[in-house]
Amino acid sequence: MIALEKLRDRMAELSDLHSVEMLLHWDQLVTMPGEGAAARAQQLGVLARLTHERATGTEIGDWLSELDGVVTDELDRDIVRLARRDWERARRVPEQLAVDLARASADGQESWHRARAADDFGAFEGALQRNVELARAYGECVAENGDSPYDALLADYDFGLRTEDLRRVFGALAAALPPLVAQAQRRSPRRAFEVPVAPQEVAVASTLRRLGVDTASWRVDTSAHPFTAWLGRRDTRLTTRYIDGEFESLLSSLHEYGHALYERQVDEALERTNLGRGTSMSIHESQSKLWENHVARNPAFAEVLAAELGAGGYPITASDLHAALVGVEPSAVRVSADPVTYPLHIILRFELELALIEGELAVADLPAAWREGMRRLLGVEVPSDALGCLQDVHWGAGSFGYFPSYGLGCLIAAQLWETMQAELGPREDDLRRGEAVPIQRWLAEHVHRFGRRLDTIPLIKRATGRGLEIEPFLRYVTPLAEG
Amino acid sequence: MIALEKLRDRMAELSDLHSVEMLLHWDQLVTMPGEGAAARAQQLGVLARLTHERATGTEIGDWLSELDGVVTDELDRDIVRLARRDWERARRVPEQLAVDLARASADGQESWHRARAADDFGAFEGALQRNVELARAYGECVAENGDSPYDALLADYDFGLRTEDLRRVFGALAAALPPLVAQAQRRSPRRAFEVPVAPQEVAVASTLRRLGVDTASWRVDTSAHPFTAWLGRRDTRLTTRYIDGEFESLLSSLHEYGHALYERQVDEALERTNLGRGTSMSIHESQSKLWENHVARNPAFAEVLAAELGAGGYPITASDLHAALVGVEPSAVRVSADPVTYPLHIILRFELELALIEGELAVADLPAAWREGMRRLLGVEVPSDALGCLQDVHWGAGSFGYFPSYGLGCLIAAQLWETMQAELGPREDDLRRGEAVPIQRWLAEHVHRFGRRLDTIPLIKRATGRGLEIEPFLRYVTPLAEG
Repeated sequence: MIALEKLRDRMAELSDLHSVEMLLHWDQLVTMPGEGAAARAQQLGVLARLTHERATGTEIGDWLSELDGVVTDELDRDIVRLARRDWERARRVPEQLAVDLARASADGQESWHRARAADDFGAFEGALQRNVELARAYGECVAENGDSPYDALLADYDFGLRTEDLRRVFGALAAALPPLVAQAQRRSPRRAFEVPVAPQEVAVASTLRRLGVDTASWRVDTSAHPFTAWLGRRDTRLTTRYIDGEFESLLSSLHEYGHALYERQVDEALERTNLGRGTSMSIHESQSKLWENHVARNPAFAEVLAAELGAGGYPITASDLHAALVGVEPSAVRVSADPVTYPLHIILRFELELALIEGELAVADLPAAWREGMRRLLGVEVPSDALGCLQDVHWGAGSFGYFPSYGLGCLIAAQLWETMQAELGPREDDLRRGEAVPIQRWLAEHVHRFGRRLDTIPLIKRATGRGLEIEPFLRYVTPLAEG
Repeated sequence: MIALEKLRDRMAELSDLHSVEMLLHWDQLVTMPGEGAAARAQQLGVLARLTHERATGTEIGDWLSELDGVVTDELDRDIVRLARRDWERARRVPEQLAVDLARASADGQESWHRARAADDFGAFEGALQRNVELARAYGECVAENGDSPYDALLADYDFGLRTEDLRRVFGALAAALPPLVAQAQRRSPRRAFEVPVAPQEVAVASTLRRLGVDTASWRVDTSAHPFTAWLGRRDTRLTTRYIDGEFESLLSSLHEYGHALYERQVDEALERTNLGRGTSMSIHESQSKLWENHVARNPAFAEVLAAELGAGGYPITASDLHAALVGVEPSAVRVSADPVTYPLHIILRFELELALIEGELAVADLPAAWREGMRRLLGVEVPSDALGCLQDVHWGAGSFGYFPSYGLGCLIAAQLWETMQAELGPREDDLRRGEAVPIQRWLAEHVHRFGRRLDTIPLIKRATGRGLEIEPFLRYVTPLAEG
């Protein structure tokens, strides 16, 4: 089957181009001098145009027709199935729009950087307006079966999920969480610790090393917003950030580690195919949230983290550290939010980006709508746009439909963690010793190895025997609120 | 003229792809975890294939035919002229060979890294053999007008120069330099200084800052072998390295600065055209050698460098520093060679790579031939292959025909420096104050701004009024040998 070989070659090429694009983004956020942004936007634009051409060529359609119904190998069938899905979807996007999206994303990130530093929403408004318009245009192009543009945007991140699913799940959460938050607030306030940066750096480095992060095939850097890039099976780059006085780096580095581990544990046979990466953003976020919520925030693992901080010159008891890591306290900032209020930050972003895409909210009105939403959902007064609607890079990068996966990830992580403990037994004894290999293996076997062969909901069903549920998450957060 | 627009668009695209490729190389040598090498080789291979396709498409031939004789604007005529030259040349390379060359280059660099670290030529031999065969095959493909494969390889770096030109120029140098070296050796031996790394770092950073290297549009990193990458007009990345006890970093950072400045001062109107970069490797090397030999090794500028080292905690007099920077002492290593023996290192590499490509030297015999050549030309016993034929990355990267430009660069730098001083007056008073703006401006006006519009020899003639000469270089080195 020459058509199959050709298809697989093209998928390998697209996989490599995707890695190259990821390097350009990583570099832009980690190493690039700021004034390189204009040239970088051009480079990303060219790469997007070429990738789009190679992903949408009519020859792919010819190969797919030839392969229709004749492929017997199960892996090849999945390769063909996803190739058809991706090709049909990509064919709906005009080349110029793909180029415009890539350029606007690079420009928008740069503009966001400057605007956030200056706490000046006006400096970002034009770029955001452009991103909203392009995202809407893109959603309109790829929508099918009566999907709204926002449905269509969602499918890029979580194929098979729809706006109405999110409304239902997030609606239930928006009802269940505020009473827990109120209950938590009746307790004594979260005790403050003033941990300097140096012991954080020691603790992050040694904790990651304990989990298998070596310098031979990993990088750990700092960036304004932590993220992870995978440029090959043996080239994983996570970033974190250190804030004087905050424990956030311990959580965010484990969070990014969860993303990284997922990509590294995809079945090797899927490498350089169209199946060789995480299947969706919500499953990806479930992996990061699993390490953040269920490992880093586990009272047993707090003993390891406290010892590492101590080795770095900041003595703290495991129970004090654990209390600080799980303390519930509504605040303005998503990435440092506690696990109970966190989904409420996501629900706000979901509401606002849906309204932006549907044209019900003008970009100029975003700061006010953000403040109103924070009051309504979290009872929080936003101190500035830098700590309000400018706090996240996503909209600057042109990513709409991405935020919901952060909320879904919390739910899926809790569901996977319950299933894993039901199968392996409680993890506390292992975590107290910093032993994570059984967790890594269980995730490889039940989640990671499939790559894109299973979509979000089928994967959850296969791993847990049940559909997406909010109850495991509520069982996880309720004791945190009760204290 | 739609054909002209299309041609210019394609040239812009190829310029961007070239920058992307440069980023992949820079990253591989500066930031990439070592085990990412296999994936990087794949990525470079795909990029090379795409670039080759876009650079050789028959549509370019159609545009060129349409534009033949009808373009009146002088800049556009140069764009068309160089586009035709590059297209015809690239068309002679089969796509598969282009892909193989790119992959072998990435693999070869990785192999070279390991072999050098282990001082094990055997670990590099296979990769080098492959690179030699591919370079020879490439040379045979692109050769025209009775050129030898090595002539053809040269043209990639220095269009218009031929093997016989090099034999003549290097022959004259190989006769003129050894007596100067012998004369220098009769003097008292070079005094040793044990400068630690920390003051070197201070001096390099502050000297570069003085020359306009800011963090907004530059990066300065360390790598095994110093090099420079230009990823856009405002994204310049040079690397240096620090060796405990050596002043090399002061020279190599100014050397790389010379490369960087050239690219940054190309006429803005040439940006993202096929003319918007340095015209040849020998002109490029003349720029680096000008800053290394004529600025960093200038007794007046030694006052600046000595003050910076002093500020970094290493007091030294300007005359001691200058003596250390120009002291003549035959040694095994090219990059730390003094300005008198340096061209002899290049002549050795020229002889050996010519013999490798012409099949007169087997790869397995390279270490012995290297040792013999070092004895003959420099009277030096090579202590190890790591400090012998494994010391440079070039052959590992598949670059044959590149080394000669290092020797030519020394000659051209001296010729330009003489002309500049004849026009501007002696530079000593300025350099003593660290004032380099008039030099930067003169180079912009007489060398840099032209980009690829003038080839090596026409550019030398325009800037100096004369063809390539060795006398200015001999006038520069003779006092160094006399002391």
